[in-house]
Amino acid sequence: MPKTPVGALLPSLRGLDSQQGPLHRQLSERVRAAILAGTLAPGSRLPSTRTLARDLGVSRSTVELAFSDLSAEGFLERRVGAGSTVSLPEDSRLPRAVAPLPDVRATAPALSRQGKAVVAQLLAPDAPVVLPFTPCLPAVDAFPVTLWQRALSRQVRALGSQLLGTGEPGGLRALREAIASHLTTARGVRCDWRRVLIVSSTQQSLDLAARLLLDPGDTVWMEEPGYLGARLAFAAAGARLCPVPVDREGLRVEEGVSRAPTARLAYVTPSHQYPLGGTLSAERRRALLEWARQANAWVFEDDYDSELRYTSQPLAAVQAMDEAGRVLYAGTFNKALFPAMRLAYLVVPETLVEAFGRAKALADGQAPLLPQAALADFMERGHFAAHLRRMRQVYGERRDSLLDALRRETSGFLQVGPTDAGMHVSVQLPAGTDDVRLVQRAAEKGLDPRALSALYLGEARTPGLVLGFSGAGPAELRRAVRVLAALL
Amino acid sequence: MPKTPVGALLPSLRGLDSQQGPLHRQLSERVRAAILAGTLAPGSRLPSTRTLARDLGVSRSTVELAFSDLSAEGFLERRVGAGSTVSLPEDSRLPRAVAPLPDVRATAPALSRQGKAVVAQLLAPDAPVVLPFTPCLPAVDAFPVTLWQRALSRQVRALGSQLLGTGEPGGLRALREAIASHLTTARGVRCDWRRVLIVSSTQQSLDLAARLLLDPGDTVWMEEPGYLGARLAFAAAGARLCPVPVDREGLRVEEGVSRAPTARLAYVTPSHQYPLGGTLSAERRRALLEWARQANAWVFEDDYDSELRYTSQPLAAVQAMDEAGRVLYAGTFNKALFPAMRLAYLVVPETLVEAFGRAKALADGQAPLLPQAALADFMERGHFAAHLRRMRQVYGERRDSLLDALRRETSGFLQVGPTDAGMHVSVQLPAGTDDVRLVQRAAEKGLDPRALSALYLGEARTPGLVLGFSGAGPAELRRAVRVLAALL
Repeated sequence: MPKTPVGALLPSLRGLDSQQGPLHRQLSERVRAAILAGTLAPGSRLPSTRTLARDLGVSRSTVELAFSDLSAEGFLERRVGAGSTVSLPEDSRLPRAVAPLPDVRATAPALSRQGKAVVAQLLAPDAPVVLPFTPCLPAVDAFPVTLWQRALSRQVRALGSQLLGTGEPGGLRALREAIASHLTTARGVRCDWRRVLIVSSTQQSLDLAARLLLDPGDTVWMEEPGYLGARLAFAAAGARLCPVPVDREGLRVEEGVSRAPTARLAYVTPSHQYPLGGTLSAERRRALLEWARQANAWVFEDDYDSELRYTSQPLAAVQAMDEAGRVLYAGTFNKALFPAMRLAYLVVPETLVEAFGRAKALADGQAPLLPQAALADFMERGHFAAHLRRMRQVYGERRDSLLDALRRETSGFLQVGPTDAGMHVSVQLPAGTDDVRLVQRAAEKGLDPRALSALYLGEARTPGLVLGFSGAGPAELRRAVRVLAALL
Repeated sequence: MPKTPVGALLPSLRGLDSQQGPLHRQLSERVRAAILAGTLAPGSRLPSTRTLARDLGVSRSTVELAFSDLSAEGFLERRVGAGSTVSLPEDSRLPRAVAPLPDVRATAPALSRQGKAVVAQLLAPDAPVVLPFTPCLPAVDAFPVTLWQRALSRQVRALGSQLLGTGEPGGLRALREAIASHLTTARGVRCDWRRVLIVSSTQQSLDLAARLLLDPGDTVWMEEPGYLGARLAFAAAGARLCPVPVDREGLRVEEGVSRAPTARLAYVTPSHQYPLGGTLSAERRRALLEWARQANAWVFEDDYDSELRYTSQPLAAVQAMDEAGRVLYAGTFNKALFPAMRLAYLVVPETLVEAFGRAKALADGQAPLLPQAALADFMERGHFAAHLRRMRQVYGERRDSLLDALRRETSGFLQVGPTDAGMHVSVQLPAGTDDVRLVQRAAEKGLDPRALSALYLGEARTPGLVLGFSGAGPAELRRAVRVLAALL
């Protein structure tokens, strides 16, 4: 970074406060610090005492005193008429003022192998603006901001040493209790609040699970095609990813058993397979749990949008059937409410409660208390349940208009996957279509579909698109489909 | 978990809303969901339609309709006089209602080796209440809650899609800019906002650095004695920890060079060595940077309480002298403001900016936006700088009363370490004293000193105590010292 010109330094000299002791000492201290810090380099010329006094709104004698202290210590050279220039005492045991940084890219040390593995996992950053077809981002415009502001304001008013102090690594009890009772009724999840760990995102749940349950070289079942974020977290931990095909009944468990019987963990999205949309059948749920019990393996159940069911009855969570303590159940408020919430939860078997608490403490301590308190308040007043009901309507309408438009505009050209749940639908394109290229051209038109083929670990069996319908209104979606149809 | 008795289920049946379609359908759906979820087990008896109608505040015919739907679907068996009992259709492709969980501890699979390493690192959880002598916890009572509430309220009012949506993994730009300019003037740190990564705590900075820069088996210089949280983060990543002794001039760099010349990283607290309190001399700073440059190693500079300097001039950060791009500079608001803030920063060399952005995205996405916006607001208005000035006075007074009391009550019995900075002082006990036992007995008296010997990797060279003075007022500290003296 270039040296700070004296002018740029002025702000840091302002706001001298007579409460804090003699003004001239405060001033000399700040200038000295700047010199020691190298932000005021030797040779740089200081303003005249008159100018500086005026700029700082202090008396000229204050500046005089400060400058004479500094020159006595050898930090300033003062010449009559020539003003004051910065110098550094030769005997200074302090860092010499430094020149601008040279470019160190050439000589920089490398990341560790582990670090390279982490960096290699490039998580496509969420879109800062939600475009038509952006998948899995909630309709922020439909979020009851006022109710949330009230919940926040109540907690802000209540801010006291308790909400400022240290919290439990596992999270705020009130929030964990609210989540436990919501999950028990809505999803049949069996837990008490102690088993609910508050994290910042499902990504963190995946990361903690990968670090606690996997060793480099361990095998993980991944749905094929499947969710990228999970793949990256497990790959970053050095796991071997074994693609297990899915169909309309979700993960083909028997395939997994035959391909990797001794895998340590299976990642599944049973309520609504991402991206194809199938629902894991009851038989396969039993088979999955039976395999996990016998193979001593873990099941990571990502229930990312289970609350959004439009037509069929929701199945209970796989966790509800787990009698062997093998299932980790993950959900997130970043999708159910809004992305900047940064609160999510992981329900772990009793045997893992302590391990995950420690891992969370070691990873980042704990989640911030105020948002947790506000969310608990929001849930206890029923706003969360009401919001989910409302979003089922809003998203249901958006889904319908997307499907209508697809039928009208792309008559039968596209094969549409299951659409009875969630925030997106996947469509299959005729074999041979280059879905990546298509996505690029759509992006040029301001649309944000995702290429199905990019979600395969192995060779993509069929090209297609993932079309989010949660972020854009019906009219916008219809327009977007017309644009998309024109591209096909 | 035991089955939910029907009574406990009632709350989840309440709040039927005619806006959401026919009431009887909503009711039957919720009962069905509870049955599928296994929270209403087959055989359990439902209340009479009259009772339930009254409890739910709906008409009896609504309940009648719901029950007849459910019994038509095979979810209820209704016998005249005998009321309705839950059943499950034989052909149901749905999970059977489940019995209470058996104890699975015996059969539970083990954690991975990596997971065991993580869990082995037991981070002493921060005290939920601050007791006399609790180290490194800020005086929450002295925090300007009202100013913080105003900053929060301003941002809460401004909440819009922008603060609800997706943020940058690196953090909110306004906050990163405020931090960069604070560090430039206060600590001579040379960075622009792009190099400032917003994290949740120094613990997360350590965790990300360990994962990006270290491989299992890599050697790390640790100050001996030193900060436990850092040791744990590096150990969890599988690093070999090499203890390097410290004296009043901080880390004995030449010792590190001779013990582990090829280490990959050195962890240092140069402004105020934790726990002994020394300040790393300028010569050693140069030697440290020179070693890092030649050995292609990293320096992790933990500047955890540098703003709190009572007597001497602050030295600039080591980062200010780093011309080779080897230094990572960490600071935290959880100590400078309050623990529940959960915001901290890591300034990384230009060459690491992208890697740490990706690692943060992979670890937990990004920090929540509202607290970041409020903190940027708080800093831009000068409240942060003002608070630091005020805390220098508050802590300075507390430090003085602690030192006076120690002099009076333990006349020369204790050897007091450097005390010109920070939130704690370390005292040495006569050789042979069992400081761990002493700490236990102090805890019984409601005091929270820490044993110096516990902070050594190798054999403790001298027993002693770490006495925090930031959390308790002068009078309380004097009383605490009397109690402590009685124990000695």
